[in-house]
Amino acid sequence: MRMVPSLRRLYEHLRKLPGIGSKTALRLSYHIINLSEEQVKDLANALVKAKMEIHTCKKCYNLAEKELCEVCSMPERDFATICVVEQPQDVAALERSQGYKGVYHVLHGVLSPLDGIGPNDIKLKELVSRSGLDDVKEVIVATNSNIEGEATAVYISKLLKPLGINVSRIAHGLPIGSDLEYADELTLARALENRRML
Amino acid sequence: MRMVPSLRRLYEHLRKLPGIGSKTALRLSYHIINLSEEQVKDLANALVKAKMEIHTCKKCYNLAEKELCEVCSMPERDFATICVVEQPQDVAALERSQGYKGVYHVLHGVLSPLDGIGPNDIKLKELVSRSGLDDVKEVIVATNSNIEGEATAVYISKLLKPLGINVSRIAHGLPIGSDLEYADELTLARALENRRML
Repeated sequence: MRMVPSLRRLYEHLRKLPGIGSKTALRLSYHIINLSEEQVKDLANALVKAKMEIHTCKKCYNLAEKELCEVCSMPERDFATICVVEQPQDVAALERSQGYKGVYHVLHGVLSPLDGIGPNDIKLKELVSRSGLDDVKEVIVATNSNIEGEATAVYISKLLKPLGINVSRIAHGLPIGSDLEYADELTLARALENRRML
Repeated sequence: MRMVPSLRRLYEHLRKLPGIGSKTALRLSYHIINLSEEQVKDLANALVKAKMEIHTCKKCYNLAEKELCEVCSMPERDFATICVVEQPQDVAALERSQGYKGVYHVLHGVLSPLDGIGPNDIKLKELVSRSGLDDVKEVIVATNSNIEGEATAVYISKLLKPLGINVSRIAHGLPIGSDLEYADELTLARALENRRML
């Protein structure tokens, strides 16, 4: 396909993004060169700024621009209850359900021996040391309901129970095999409510 | 929805792009902050560079990084035959069909009185003055086959015939109502071959 080199480079960058096929990448490329110079620079800036300004919360490893994330900065939250999730997206999904008053812990992954991801590759040590500090009473494991998520839940329960902490699992009102990130608010709220002790 | 401010800004920028809904924008946003700093900067650079380095060809108004576009820079092309298209995408589509040896003229639009687009808003004057110069023998009008495209074709024929130039219309082997940009190579090649005199 004949394409001006800088257009082709843009197209190839866009095609690498998840869910963007070659037709969409082409359409986006032409759209972008038809935007004003200011609009393109704004978009490029938004990309770089999001990457540069977002760090992880010192306490729970959720996304944050300051030292603590938005949830950990709220004094009215119940710091004795920690909900463990795989990704920052899951915090956003649970917050949308509005049924949860505790705080979070983001693992940034799950145990997955097949992919070579062990306990030291996710924020598990951090969960344990944190659970010892804040007078934590309960840890709700809300990893996804697939093999890796379940295995991680069992692993966490084995780590924390000896410390006298109650470990529960989010209820599977959630359709099995689905991603927590895309569950609807009601299902998420129900699932938190029906958590069962491990 | 709770979102870190710089992530929300990125999300809102992405959601404005054509064909990107809110779920895709969200997924892309999280994907982007998980890329390396270098990858994000590369992507941002590709955006800005494509916008800054791409201009239009001095002769045919196709996309170009130099003074002339790739097609106008090829000495073996037949400069006596000009194919008139609406957008640079259409040049790319016709070039993919590999059946055409002439050059192009990109109007950057079509006549559309309802949208307030008149003859001075597209590259029509430029087509006329160019047709007087290069010993042009034939102008093939390959605007899309909708009302505006057809009206523009008739308008061009009225402008150029008095100058002694043959004006033809690309054949409608193309499905009526479809966009030239997405037609397949064979249909495009056939359509050029079967052009009829206006």
